[in-house]
Amino acid sequence: MRFTVLGAGAMGSAFATPLRAGGHDVRLWGTWLDGEILETLRAGGPHPGTGVRLAEGCALYDAEDLAAALDGAEAVLVAISSAGLTDVLDRALPLLPPAAVLALATKGFVPTDDGPVLIPDAVRARAPEARLAVVGGPCKANEVAAGRPTVAVVGAREAEGLAEAMSTPVYRVEACADEPGVEVCAALKNVYAIALGIADGLPTEAGGQPWHDLRAALFTRAVRELSEATARAGGDPATPYGPAGVGDLEVTGLSGRNKVFGVRVGGGERPSVALDAMAAQGRLVEGVPAARLARGWVADDLDRFPLLAALGELLDGDRSPGADADARDRIVQAALRGR
Amino acid sequence: MRFTVLGAGAMGSAFATPLRAGGHDVRLWGTWLDGEILETLRAGGPHPGTGVRLAEGCALYDAEDLAAALDGAEAVLVAISSAGLTDVLDRALPLLPPAAVLALATKGFVPTDDGPVLIPDAVRARAPEARLAVVGGPCKANEVAAGRPTVAVVGAREAEGLAEAMSTPVYRVEACADEPGVEVCAALKNVYAIALGIADGLPTEAGGQPWHDLRAALFTRAVRELSEATARAGGDPATPYGPAGVGDLEVTGLSGRNKVFGVRVGGGERPSVALDAMAAQGRLVEGVPAARLARGWVADDLDRFPLLAALGELLDGDRSPGADADARDRIVQAALRGR
Repeated sequence: MRFTVLGAGAMGSAFATPLRAGGHDVRLWGTWLDGEILETLRAGGPHPGTGVRLAEGCALYDAEDLAAALDGAEAVLVAISSAGLTDVLDRALPLLPPAAVLALATKGFVPTDDGPVLIPDAVRARAPEARLAVVGGPCKANEVAAGRPTVAVVGAREAEGLAEAMSTPVYRVEACADEPGVEVCAALKNVYAIALGIADGLPTEAGGQPWHDLRAALFTRAVRELSEATARAGGDPATPYGPAGVGDLEVTGLSGRNKVFGVRVGGGERPSVALDAMAAQGRLVEGVPAARLARGWVADDLDRFPLLAALGELLDGDRSPGADADARDRIVQAALRGR
Repeated sequence: MRFTVLGAGAMGSAFATPLRAGGHDVRLWGTWLDGEILETLRAGGPHPGTGVRLAEGCALYDAEDLAAALDGAEAVLVAISSAGLTDVLDRALPLLPPAAVLALATKGFVPTDDGPVLIPDAVRARAPEARLAVVGGPCKANEVAAGRPTVAVVGAREAEGLAEAMSTPVYRVEACADEPGVEVCAALKNVYAIALGIADGLPTEAGGQPWHDLRAALFTRAVRELSEATARAGGDPATPYGPAGVGDLEVTGLSGRNKVFGVRVGGGERPSVALDAMAAQGRLVEGVPAARLARGWVADDLDRFPLLAALGELLDGDRSPGADADARDRIVQAALRGR
């Protein structure tokens, strides 16, 4: 198949590994921010985001060559940061071949005048005829790039073709008819991973053990809220129990910036201080803006999302230390909530 | 309520914390192997298994005082190791007050002439009139003993009374009508946690990252197999998505002997060598015998339990290094299995 990947960041370039292993034609298009990355890749160096060299046989396209990158594409994988998505779609949607599948690996919400909207819904509003799919599952870019085994999931009304095309013996992609479910899980997992990090960072007495029970209780609560959120989005509440939810939440909570940020906050650091410190190192914590947008998305039903509500409060900009302490307490209370 | 806890090991003594916090009457009975522990507790020292002192106000009973320990009990929490369970039940069942709830915290299978049987089923065969319940959820003994927040779950036809009685503001026990489901999860989580440890222990290139995607894929597969196993036991396949499955698997995979054993095996150590080395340190790996029993329990349906099957093979006594390598491969293949 002829794949075009939009975005030469870590995730976009990582897709090249399974796609090239599957014998597909891969064009990797870089945004206007990806100039240095493309230079490095053209020189044969490892991708700065994954530490892994790009799979052999990809064609690289600069930002101004979007039309050429999309010409005749059968599947377009969108791996742009959520912040840059709108700009890219503005240019790309008119150039999209009508029969092409538009598979979104970009996760999250976009703010609109009517409140936060899930990314596929925003795309659908602008391109109602597009054949949409969402790609989720436990897939760290550096591991996928290196060809390490994992599972992924394509959420779409007719997901089987794309799932099978993308699959390799070590990158197993399953088809899921529940597109909203896969997207909700992808959009929220970064937020909940912050909670897992918070549990990991909580102070312990000298020689004390990490708070593992609490972490597991938070994990359980997060999975339940993913199910509630999926139902809210019109999806199958069981979707989060598979790779899109359980799997991606597990991997996201093991490492990565959301977890690291959570550990700092759990240890007592003010969220805004931790955020700025990480930003100064060029490390964006996607779960933070996602928390605010997600909380806005369920604003009329916060009772069913006590963990999301508490995380949204904690991460809602500058607040007093007292308010932060209250929010931390509410995070623990959320963990202790039953069904 | 008048609680009697059978077994003064880590888990049995840990229950004393929430039960005393709830104002209940607590009698802690030690087995014939718990003599030294009882001595330590009577002297006011910390429990050797949890590192935490026993909650105030418990009455301690020696092994020979079982009748006195059970006299008038309203709820009996069984926290004996699965190896010692039969002996204790032989003596305890005739002494059990008829109206008492028999709540099993002991998890696993017992071998019988008809093959492995889940513990509550074995108990029910011997005491058909007993009011049974199963206690599960993410509860590390040292953390529960120390009063750290977590959730637990009582699986029983009428679980609400016991769940509410045992609950405290930091030990939230939810009721679940699906007793088989809670038991299956409890019985199998140690086995699957070994797989998580194996992923954690896999060799990496110099400076390489842990195999997080694989761990998450194994976690996902394990949860799916818990659901299949629960359905097989006549339970609700959704039970594993809550604290009994997801929660307990998460906490068990974070630390503890099953995970540690898994890490050693993932790193290349022969399972029997790792097992003996840990046994020499007094550290029993419950997931190993459980793996064999569990694999026997699903022996007629192994296709639906590829991860359990592969773990059972890997842990099935002395085998050749080649057979071990094959079993490791099958563990990875199981992780990549879709639905």
